[in-house]
Amino acid sequence: MNIGFIGLGLMGRPMALHLAEAGHTLHLWARRPASLQPFSDSGAHAHLSAAEVARHAEIIFTMVADAPDVAAVTLGDDGITAGAQPGLIVVDMSTIAPAAARDIAARLERARIEFLDAPVSGGEIGAINATLTIMVGGRADVFDKVKPLFDKLGKSATLIGGCGAGQVAKACNQILTGVGVAAVAEAFNFARKSGVDPARVREALLGGFAYSKILENHGQRMLDRNFQPGFKAWMHQKDMRIVMEEAHRLGLALPSAAATAQMFNAMVGSGLGDDDSIAMLKLLESMSGQQA
Amino acid sequence: MNIGFIGLGLMGRPMALHLAEAGHTLHLWARRPASLQPFSDSGAHAHLSAAEVARHAEIIFTMVADAPDVAAVTLGDDGITAGAQPGLIVVDMSTIAPAAARDIAARLERARIEFLDAPVSGGEIGAINATLTIMVGGRADVFDKVKPLFDKLGKSATLIGGCGAGQVAKACNQILTGVGVAAVAEAFNFARKSGVDPARVREALLGGFAYSKILENHGQRMLDRNFQPGFKAWMHQKDMRIVMEEAHRLGLALPSAAATAQMFNAMVGSGLGDDDSIAMLKLLESMSGQQA
Repeated sequence: MNIGFIGLGLMGRPMALHLAEAGHTLHLWARRPASLQPFSDSGAHAHLSAAEVARHAEIIFTMVADAPDVAAVTLGDDGITAGAQPGLIVVDMSTIAPAAARDIAARLERARIEFLDAPVSGGEIGAINATLTIMVGGRADVFDKVKPLFDKLGKSATLIGGCGAGQVAKACNQILTGVGVAAVAEAFNFARKSGVDPARVREALLGGFAYSKILENHGQRMLDRNFQPGFKAWMHQKDMRIVMEEAHRLGLALPSAAATAQMFNAMVGSGLGDDDSIAMLKLLESMSGQQA
Repeated sequence: MNIGFIGLGLMGRPMALHLAEAGHTLHLWARRPASLQPFSDSGAHAHLSAAEVARHAEIIFTMVADAPDVAAVTLGDDGITAGAQPGLIVVDMSTIAPAAARDIAARLERARIEFLDAPVSGGEIGAINATLTIMVGGRADVFDKVKPLFDKLGKSATLIGGCGAGQVAKACNQILTGVGVAAVAEAFNFARKSGVDPARVREALLGGFAYSKILENHGQRMLDRNFQPGFKAWMHQKDMRIVMEEAHRLGLALPSAAATAQMFNAMVGSGLGDDDSIAMLKLLESMSGQQA
């Protein structure tokens, strides 16, 4: 199949390579030519614009930073709409606001282009190992067409609902993981400041209702003081901004998510933005007179 | 062994019965005689005061509501200290502030009474099924003596550290479970208000880093709208008060726990105190124009 892929960063590059390895012909466009380098032996075609990619592809994946990038690549000058063939499917795997996804979907529909929002969780490791969790919004018949390709990228792809539902599920994921990191960091700092070994607390709590993947995995990395990303704090900050803007739009109070969003703001302000999100522990320590 | 048990409520009653079933002789005192009724066939001895219990027991368990109750039963008029034999061990399984536990331990030590703080998680079901998680603070040699009895009450008993460390671990447990409930309730309400089925979101997220026992177990009960306790909201409110008072004492910021503590306050204020803590979903719905 002729597949377009636009957005060849930390996440997009390994994802596109999985599709090439599965025997598909890739059509690529990248702002920086260096991004195309890893594809030199893959039989991929480089193009001069997203429109040019659209002239050659049946399905185009996008994996970019935020909603304005998705809009530019799809609807902008020399964007996908400028070159799309009838029946083209655009699958946006970026994390953007649900409202933005619905808006882009509606504008693509007027150009007779099908759209799925399909954000992922699992991070760079998940992209490399093809173990991403893919949360999809859109029409079931379109989802069914793309499903075999999703299966090359992740361990599970779930159709959550209509347009934007994938982004809603991703927002829920970012609430649960962000607040989860905050709760574990607060508990560990509480234990340590109380003179109690957080490692023993974690061990005792893993067997009960306090168990979470965050306590097990991220908690161990906090104890190891391994703050290498993983998932950078500034990216989680961005995702919490999407959550809080959507909450504002909907008239919805999210108290624990709001407190956590503020903590991510403080992490970025404290120079911890490029650390993993678990460096929230360092922020809490710096706020309570405990330096690492 | 002659074992004292004081505090025969929802939690204490099944716990004491497990010890009787294991062949131990129970010595009981209760404010309300009706509390002794379930023990009529157990060979247990009823006494007129905690001091009287102390005259007959080698180890006394207490399972009461809060720190003032523990202090009254141990140090008050006709309390345990008034009747204690040399070598007596007091094991308090109530959830109280770490500072209060340390204070009571110090005062009992002056009366040559050993003390363990040993709060539990797992709720009434865990007490009935002897599957409690027991978090213990105190001396290792005292813990070793009591360990065979803990094993009759729960699936794991962990010595976390010195005096008060059990209560610190319990406070951490209540942070993680309380904030966990808030995060899941916020995510589900966010999904529903966005027009997306929370059940499908939960299903998609269970396979990734958002996985927690709270999402699996409590999340399913939220979807079933089964708000029967379980663990009552007013009890979690009390435990979050302990957490926040301790944070104040230590000069420690707990942003996500603080937001959650406020939500438990609002639950009690909204008449949801006797519901399970997962009724936080109902509170959030009432705050966003969505009635059940």
